[in-house]
Amino acid sequence: MRKNLIIAHGGGPTAVINASLYGVIKEAEKVNSIERVYGAVHGIEGVLNEHFIDLTNADADNIDMLTYTPASAIGSCRRKLTEEDYPVVMDIFKRHNIGYFIYNGGNDSMDTCDKVNRVAREAGMKLYTFGIPKTIDNDLAHTDHCPGFGSAARFVASVTRDLWCEVKALPIYVTILETMGRNAGWLAAAASLAKINDRPCAQLIYLPETAFDKDRFFSDVSNRLSRQKELLIVVSEGLAYPDGKLLADTGFVDGFGHPVPGGTAQAMARMLLDDMNIKTRAERPGLIGRALSLLQSTVDRDEAIACGRYAVKAMAEGKTDRMVSIVRQSNDPYAYSLEDVPLSAVANHEKTFPLEWITENKAGITKEFEEYCKPLIGEDFPAYSDFDSYYKAGL
Amino acid sequence: MRKNLIIAHGGGPTAVINASLYGVIKEAEKVNSIERVYGAVHGIEGVLNEHFIDLTNADADNIDMLTYTPASAIGSCRRKLTEEDYPVVMDIFKRHNIGYFIYNGGNDSMDTCDKVNRVAREAGMKLYTFGIPKTIDNDLAHTDHCPGFGSAARFVASVTRDLWCEVKALPIYVTILETMGRNAGWLAAAASLAKINDRPCAQLIYLPETAFDKDRFFSDVSNRLSRQKELLIVVSEGLAYPDGKLLADTGFVDGFGHPVPGGTAQAMARMLLDDMNIKTRAERPGLIGRALSLLQSTVDRDEAIACGRYAVKAMAEGKTDRMVSIVRQSNDPYAYSLEDVPLSAVANHEKTFPLEWITENKAGITKEFEEYCKPLIGEDFPAYSDFDSYYKAGL
Repeated sequence: MRKNLIIAHGGGPTAVINASLYGVIKEAEKVNSIERVYGAVHGIEGVLNEHFIDLTNADADNIDMLTYTPASAIGSCRRKLTEEDYPVVMDIFKRHNIGYFIYNGGNDSMDTCDKVNRVAREAGMKLYTFGIPKTIDNDLAHTDHCPGFGSAARFVASVTRDLWCEVKALPIYVTILETMGRNAGWLAAAASLAKINDRPCAQLIYLPETAFDKDRFFSDVSNRLSRQKELLIVVSEGLAYPDGKLLADTGFVDGFGHPVPGGTAQAMARMLLDDMNIKTRAERPGLIGRALSLLQSTVDRDEAIACGRYAVKAMAEGKTDRMVSIVRQSNDPYAYSLEDVPLSAVANHEKTFPLEWITENKAGITKEFEEYCKPLIGEDFPAYSDFDSYYKAGL
Repeated sequence: MRKNLIIAHGGGPTAVINASLYGVIKEAEKVNSIERVYGAVHGIEGVLNEHFIDLTNADADNIDMLTYTPASAIGSCRRKLTEEDYPVVMDIFKRHNIGYFIYNGGNDSMDTCDKVNRVAREAGMKLYTFGIPKTIDNDLAHTDHCPGFGSAARFVASVTRDLWCEVKALPIYVTILETMGRNAGWLAAAASLAKINDRPCAQLIYLPETAFDKDRFFSDVSNRLSRQKELLIVVSEGLAYPDGKLLADTGFVDGFGHPVPGGTAQAMARMLLDDMNIKTRAERPGLIGRALSLLQSTVDRDEAIACGRYAVKAMAEGKTDRMVSIVRQSNDPYAYSLEDVPLSAVANHEKTFPLEWITENKAGITKEFEEYCKPLIGEDFPAYSDFDSYYKAGL
């Protein structure tokens, strides 16, 4: 008997989460044992509320546009299932003849997906489950990187580059750009890819993997300002003091009880203003950093589609309880392959930024990261006009 | 005798200020009476410091790339000339055989340009001066709009649209986007152009032309949240209380003594959190809103180039002490022509957003503005996947 497939999106959207959904829909069309593809509206909440949409016969344009539409076209949520929820989910799956369940999300979602699989097995239900990695934070274990990261990294690199042009043009403030990234500094590190004529556009980069030290920060800034008028700093929103306290948060917690960070750049700007009398601006694009369709990385998009396809194919071949994993084959030319890993190995782990890729002064990123990240952000940026050599020469 | 032309950029950069510079350089090549084109490094400060670069024989690629390079490739400044500075400027102009002076800037710059002209005339110097309008704030009088505005408006409209996808996908917070715009609400109003399937992406828009009323704000939000879970608000950074006090500022003033606004969205988010217990996120792209090369409007770029060319041509024809003015011929198809107006008419005036284009509830923008603004932001945005009708239908 043919069974239906249900896909849910979990956690924060990305620029390519819909591209994975596209891959799932297109691959499912080829699989005989799959009857219909349902999208759970607003993630696992849509499952619990039996709020599905049937994507099988959805308008073809709407499906094609998924490849570049930002955020989650079927919604998402941050709800964590309770033990009581699982039997309810099983009943709903039975009622709707679900044989395949895909969770497109981060490590919390992989945990949920793993538990759904276990409960189904215990109930003697035939259910294939698969996870598609998805996070701009790039913090999932057992995959080289995560779909969503490349586009968000492209955003950070592109914005850092353009902001540096602005900072150089009118160097009256120190400027601090805040990136997303609660516990892992991957995104802030992507600022190191921003260069104009081989000179780095961000001169100081602070990741949450290194505890914030106010004295060191002040001395970093003083040292730089003794040599240059223009200063662009990039900082991860998750930067914290040695005791783990965030420099700034929004005053509320998310659905998992995690405090939501925000305002870190502004907090640092105030320190420079209050303690050192340095005019400092803070810029915080926030959610824009994961939502901007224009800065989708083509590499990221293609991989996201491939991950969606892989999950369906693997389940059709009888695999279950696993997550798609991207394995890097080479950097230059960039090549990757897809494999799969047990959901339990990924669930609730967090892959933070490698400490050996942070420079000794704790305010910079090594070449190794650049080599790792560069292929993921897609096409090269265009060259910009640069009159720096003329500046120095004068007339 | 052939004379040299000097161009300076004043105030905040835009995505197309360099495009006007390109127009000036290219047009000057055609004018026999112009010997060399100098760029003043960091605006009028470069003039005072005799820090010029010779753009006449600059690398052709560097010149061509000006059309899309963001910020100011020759730098800018916010310095206001004192009465004592003017004779110094005259001496420098004489020493460098300057016969043409172009100021590419906002209303402060037009005032400076006008004074340079007057002082030169009083000193019996033969100097042609011309202003090129430039401001993302769109607040210059006697021109339909200003180069720089179209691209910044494109940024606001595009970001509003993508952010709305994000807000809809994960509607756990009210989201407030802060745009630039100290005294004039043109930029925040551009959020009204963001639509998906003809539905507005920003549901409440607050401009500085209307004083902030906390009670009305709370009731606007309550009314919306009684009908919808997702809410995106756009606010101009310059929003102020009835007594003129900004909702938030950065704690310092700019070179003209104006307080630098910033943090308005965050201040409003705190009000909703503290007084109404509504989780609210604030996003503040800040300078990114005028620096992002990718969101350059092609219409804006072409007009900026044309304004640069016009200024040179007009001076070559003997005009002086005037600013290029864009005159709209029609909206659909969009057509414009260039004229010129006296600098003194533009200097130190501020064209705020027309009150009749603000809706009666003071939290929305009328169709008239949409018709005005739409041609300026360039190509239409791509259509996005939209499953809203499926959501409602369910299975």
